[in-house]
Amino acid sequence: MSNQVLINDLVAANRILSHHGVLDAYGHISARDPVNAQRYWLSRSMAPMLVASEDIIEFDLESNPVRAGENRLFFERVIHGEIYKARQDVMSVVHNHSPSLIPFCNSDTKLRPMVGNAAFLGTGAPVFDIRSVDDEGDLNICTVPQAKGLADALGSHWIVLLRGHGAVAVGESVRQCVRHAIIAERNARQQIEATTLGPVKFLTQSEIEFAQRSKPKDPDRAWQLWKQQAIGN
Amino acid sequence: MSNQVLINDLVAANRILSHHGVLDAYGHISARDPVNAQRYWLSRSMAPMLVASEDIIEFDLESNPVRAGENRLFFERVIHGEIYKARQDVMSVVHNHSPSLIPFCNSDTKLRPMVGNAAFLGTGAPVFDIRSVDDEGDLNICTVPQAKGLADALGSHWIVLLRGHGAVAVGESVRQCVRHAIIAERNARQQIEATTLGPVKFLTQSEIEFAQRSKPKDPDRAWQLWKQQAIGN
Amino acid sequence: MSNQVLINDLVAANRILSHHGVLDAYGHISARDPVNAQRYWLSRSMAPMLVASEDIIEFDLESNPVRAGENRLFFERVIHGEIYKARQDVMSVVHNHSPSLIPFCNSDTKLRPMVGNAAFLGTGAPVFDIRSVDDEGDLNICTVPQAKGLADALGSHWIVLLRGHGAVAVGESVRQCVRHAIIAERNARQQIEATTLGPVKFLTQSEIEFAQRSKPKDPDRAWQLWKQQAIGN
Amino acid sequence: MSNQVLINDLVAANRILSHHGVLDAYGHISARDPVNAQRYWLSRSMAPMLVASEDIIEFDLESNPVRAGENRLFFERVIHGEIYKARQDVMSVVHNHSPSLIPFCNSDTKLRPMVGNAAFLGTGAPVFDIRSVDDEGDLNICTVPQAKGLADALGSHWIVLLRGHGAVAVGESVRQCVRHAIIAERNARQQIEATTLGPVKFLTQSEIEFAQRSKPKDPDRAWQLWKQQAIGN
Repeated sequence: MSNQVLINDLVAANRILSHHGVLDAYGHISARDPVNAQRYWLSRSMAPMLVASEDIIEFDLESNPVRAGENRLFFERVIHGEIYKARQDVMSVVHNHSPSLIPFCNSDTKLRPMVGNAAFLGTGAPVFDIRSVDDEGDLNICTVPQAKGLADALGSHWIVLLRGHGAVAVGESVRQCVRHAIIAERNARQQIEATTLGPVKFLTQSEIEFAQRSKPKDPDRAWQLWKQQAIGN
Repeated sequence: MSNQVLINDLVAANRILSHHGVLDAYGHISARDPVNAQRYWLSRSMAPMLVASEDIIEFDLESNPVRAGENRLFFERVIHGEIYKARQDVMSVVHNHSPSLIPFCNSDTKLRPMVGNAAFLGTGAPVFDIRSVDDEGDLNICTVPQAKGLADALGSHWIVLLRGHGAVAVGESVRQCVRHAIIAERNARQQIEATTLGPVKFLTQSEIEFAQRSKPKDPDRAWQLWKQQAIGN
Repeated sequence: MSNQVLINDLVAANRILSHHGVLDAYGHISARDPVNAQRYWLSRSMAPMLVASEDIIEFDLESNPVRAGENRLFFERVIHGEIYKARQDVMSVVHNHSPSLIPFCNSDTKLRPMVGNAAFLGTGAPVFDIRSVDDEGDLNICTVPQAKGLADALGSHWIVLLRGHGAVAVGESVRQCVRHAIIAERNARQQIEATTLGPVKFLTQSEIEFAQRSKPKDPDRAWQLWKQQAIGN
Repeated sequence: MSNQVLINDLVAANRILSHHGVLDAYGHISARDPVNAQRYWLSRSMAPMLVASEDIIEFDLESNPVRAGENRLFFERVIHGEIYKARQDVMSVVHNHSPSLIPFCNSDTKLRPMVGNAAFLGTGAPVFDIRSVDDEGDLNICTVPQAKGLADALGSHWIVLLRGHGAVAVGESVRQCVRHAIIAERNARQQIEATTLGPVKFLTQSEIEFAQRSKPKDPDRAWQLWKQQAIGN
């Protein structure tokens, strides 16, 4: 995969996630460089809906821009660097404030999988409490220790919720990362509604494990449709 | 009804159900051939929103394509074949992951009719649990035994929910099948909201039976409006 | 007010109520003739969104078309005739299946006013149960006795809910009738959400009575905005 | 900041808040004059969506128009004058009937901050009950004593809810005021949904205080995106 293909996917991802309301004026999605695992790509600090190819910048895993003189950088980009360090399998990271996830960020009720394509939620999304690192009162992930704490809370999961803040989803590709973020939002809404009806039956352990072993069938079909809906042809 | 009329309705059905959010990138709707009851028509494996006439393929009731060499087929098409075998009265089948139905797939609370046009829900939509057939952990309906089990759970109903997965609605025509799928989604949302208010009064047994005896008045009015909204004139 | 002005308002009302989701493919709004109180105007049986001036037909209060030979008539038009007979003050009647009202149709929880502009809901919208007239199982209002029973249940209220069916709202003008229907839908949604938070404080008796004594300030502002949003300039 | 810049922001604010459903046909947003603190700017009485530069009028803090002969004025404009008198730090005031805030207006459950950008909600939005001033039954803020009572209830908060009516949000600028109104609506929806899941964890006292001490990072990014979405470029 050339860098241009990767960057095209990142631009599309910004639009798709904005179109789905998973990103609004804030939040950001990055991709690890497919050739150099010590690098990742992320847009300048700007509204995701407006990101174009030329806004995508290369960073090292200390989250410093590779090219000198870059400015207007996301102060929370340390999230990306620390997760890429901790998770060799992760090729894409998104941080968002997805509306239906917020209730689960602030609840003891776990976000759990309602249907097969949400099996990546496993036995429930962990919730990271920034007070486990420090208690200054700033909920943003600004420092390496905070981002390391977040990466620890993520562990081997595909999504981690941040108390009083939002979520971080990861994937083995930009497209899978986008899928995780969109499906998590949808699952959250359905779980909230199901809770109104009484006790909820989530996927079983064997169903979760089956999904981990097997590849989803034709996942690109959703990506292509979402892209067309968000950008046009 | 010529095949072209049938295929036009199928194409419109794909668009209408996408427009209503009842189908997204996945799910599929088929029609039994009006002349040869041993055949049905279904699109290639693709996003329903993008289906055109030339994507509609003929299948036998073993869900094999009639014309040799067809590829890109829905692996879950066995749902359609087995239901057409089991239900002589059914002329159209849709499988979807309709968002407001998912809570009922994973609950002991039954989806029951709130208003007259939802009387086809009868005493409550049955829920098929794939573990009643086998317990490998894959929630998809991939084999004939699984599809037979699903058809058994459907019985003489017009809709069956699939635990951890979605729904299958059927009809005596493509248009009735679409109507069932859209009304089920709407009824689900209203039932969830009603549950917030306290005990819910559903249609009585005599109201359900009356609706079964009598034809709906001018059902095509909805079809025509939905078609115009989804496709334009 | 000339008939053409009245008919223009009726056409706009059909579009506005469709735009707000208060009418879909079904439902209908009528206006009493401002000159001859024994007549009312109502569209042919068709989707409200598609109604044009030439579709509006004159009826007497027995709900027979004044001009011989009219066809394609709403079978539930008897609702309009009987309410105009029973309520001299009513100049417009709408029958709909407004989505957020359905939960209240099937609940002992009353629809009650959350804010000042919903004060017309009074101490709570009455619910008409068609079984109080006959128990054949058909929920539609097809006969004069059924419509009379509905008018009785409406009494001096501005809206009546129909168990398992929908609602009928009335007004002193087409514009007020539209306002009642839209505000009722909005109030219903807010009341459902408020119920999630705990006990709900509704308008007090003196607040309801104040609103009945005083005219709303600039109600046409909403009509004009809604019209522009539904139709364009 | 020249008056034209201020007026441009006010016009944009009207469109943005309409686009977000925070304002509908009613409600109004004003700005204190940046040069003369005894003056504020507010549109004529009209639907916010339709406000243009030439509709913005100058008022003194008694809420009288500075230029003689102005007509079509909001009767509730006294809200603006009295809050500007009581709060020297406030440069913008909006009165609205934001849909998800209404449930909190009529509940003992307080609107409290779910995430960092809603920290301005503090320990919970106060609720003003107009009966604390007089009990005539009119819920509108028509008199100076009522507006003074409302300003008292607002105190040093950034938003106050009005029982049976709506809300008033304030800010140190038009843009911050818009942000407060939009975030309050979003927070309300998320808090209602969170309540369905069980006990809700709100921001801690130190998190609320941290947000009060520190400036939000790049708040204009949201303003620019919202403006583009509401108006186009």
